[in-house]
Amino acid sequence: MRAVVLAEGGVRVEERPAPEPGPGWARLAVRLAGVCSTDLQLRRGYMGFRGVLGHEVVGVVDRGPPGWLGLRATAEINFACGACAACARGLGRHCPTRTVLGILGADGCMAEHVVVPLANLHAVPDGVPDEAAVFAEPLAAAYEVLEQVHVRPGTPAVVLGDGKLGLLCALALRQAGARVACVGRHARKRALLEAVGVTTRPADALDPATAGGGGGGGGAALAGALGLDLGPGERVPLVVEATGSADGLALAIALVAPRGTLVLKSTVADRHHLSLAPLVIDEVTVVGSRCGPFAPALDALARGAIDPRPLVERVYPLEEGPAALDHAATSGALKVLLRP
Amino acid sequence: MRAVVLAEGGVRVEERPAPEPGPGWARLAVRLAGVCSTDLQLRRGYMGFRGVLGHEVVGVVDRGPPGWLGLRATAEINFACGACAACARGLGRHCPTRTVLGILGADGCMAEHVVVPLANLHAVPDGVPDEAAVFAEPLAAAYEVLEQVHVRPGTPAVVLGDGKLGLLCALALRQAGARVACVGRHARKRALLEAVGVTTRPADALDPATAGGGGGGGGAALAGALGLDLGPGERVPLVVEATGSADGLALAIALVAPRGTLVLKSTVADRHHLSLAPLVIDEVTVVGSRCGPFAPALDALARGAIDPRPLVERVYPLEEGPAALDHAATSGALKVLLRP
Repeated sequence: MRAVVLAEGGVRVEERPAPEPGPGWARLAVRLAGVCSTDLQLRRGYMGFRGVLGHEVVGVVDRGPPGWLGLRATAEINFACGACAACARGLGRHCPTRTVLGILGADGCMAEHVVVPLANLHAVPDGVPDEAAVFAEPLAAAYEVLEQVHVRPGTPAVVLGDGKLGLLCALALRQAGARVACVGRHARKRALLEAVGVTTRPADALDPATAGGGGGGGGAALAGALGLDLGPGERVPLVVEATGSADGLALAIALVAPRGTLVLKSTVADRHHLSLAPLVIDEVTVVGSRCGPFAPALDALARGAIDPRPLVERVYPLEEGPAALDHAATSGALKVLLRP
Repeated sequence: MRAVVLAEGGVRVEERPAPEPGPGWARLAVRLAGVCSTDLQLRRGYMGFRGVLGHEVVGVVDRGPPGWLGLRATAEINFACGACAACARGLGRHCPTRTVLGILGADGCMAEHVVVPLANLHAVPDGVPDEAAVFAEPLAAAYEVLEQVHVRPGTPAVVLGDGKLGLLCALALRQAGARVACVGRHARKRALLEAVGVTTRPADALDPATAGGGGGGGGAALAGALGLDLGPGERVPLVVEATGSADGLALAIALVAPRGTLVLKSTVADRHHLSLAPLVIDEVTVVGSRCGPFAPALDALARGAIDPRPLVERVYPLEEGPAALDHAATSGALKVLLRP
């Protein structure tokens, strides 16, 4: 089979033997694979990964137990051991010996075929087209915010960053009934959100330096500029940081209300150089948030509550994998897909 | 009256007019005032405070409404406006226009007399001696952890730092039934905790650098050294960071379990230079924690569940305020008190 492989010299398309599923596993004939910012980080050396890239997939089971053959499915990416204390507590996504599809110790889905544990497969509801189903993994990551934080309908919320994950977080919060603002760099992306009732602001309109290093009156002035109808002097009870930049974190700290919640959605490994004292003074709860549940994400796609297809930038043939990654790495790029 | 005043040239004892309480306020004749690390930060310029220092107090009402005269009391330190949206939601401790006793816009209690709003007074139960009651404010800050986090009896918890607040947090967690370890620099302080069933470890025995920058196996090895009977490979579900240092925060991130809770108890304004990615990968909840409720703290003192008197290092006469602050600033010093 053809596969997009990250090796010492970079990313290239290789011919490899198609994988065979062991007991309890199935093989997907891949229909679409998505390019994620994590793939671009892996290409730069993150995690030291070597192998087939890709962890966003929709495909059809073509090898595995008879009852599974022909199932159109997507797959959760954390392959848990199923036997440790974390797994026993239902925290398989945090299993300390887990492998992760296309990220850690397991070949990914930018290939004609990929093998995954049966436990990780989720059937795609009939009405959901492949171009939407391939968003199940990043949309699940966005839905993780709703798992971790009680988002009351009407809650003012701001998402910092209009990258792909930021956009999906804004969509997930909006369909949960929150009043959502998004701060981003790209007018084209912000327009996608405005179309579904999300207020947006250009990133350069909110300079965290004007807040005087977090919190208080300066933060309230910034928050007041978000168009969320906050009261005078009020800041934002729910802030989702999806830029992964030091500036984004500083802005998040400035915007978040006392006793509010700041969700960190980015695993970008940059070191931050800032004081966390405002988080203590304002008793903010900071929630690290990574992978999420597929079922609610697929349900939202099936209901049509979220249609991620406007986020598709371009579909490349698998053979053009390296060019697809280059495209995904350009400033302002939306979702790039690969089709084997 | 005599008062310990922070002015341009530093801390000195001054003669000042005794304050008179306005409507809705009372005046305390101060019996004891505590020196807190925050006072030492204020002396170094934190908050730009000028005025009478001190926010830990026990005294007797000598001016105020007739029903209050003679009451032995301590006082909550945040003076809320009572009229804003935060106050309406019961978040007076986060009122954006609050003044704070001896910290922000309000003269403190290192004086013969101090005035406070009646709403901030708490009667001291009869059986609680002055030397314990003066700990109500810092003990309330420790109890804030129990307000913010569900601490199940038997939960393994570690407190980083054996400063005064770290010790009180360890005591509060221990009396809540947690299995508690404390990591600290001072054998004398650790002995106080060992006496009530808290496991302790010297700070130099746990080097976060050995954890490889947060999380995973290195963190589990460090956690295993705490004596908390964790399972193999397990980390700590509840970590309280009370050192305020970059090293302490790095160790906290290394020790905290996936989906665990990291409580930040220090407002030290140092800038940190580290990656927050492990908090995202492990989906840690970080809880900023500042001032807390006086009632449970006073109740714990009344029940004898916590006896903070072994933490008293020395009682100085008020006239020796500057020397008392110098003493409190020495490495390893416990609680220094002032008696007018």
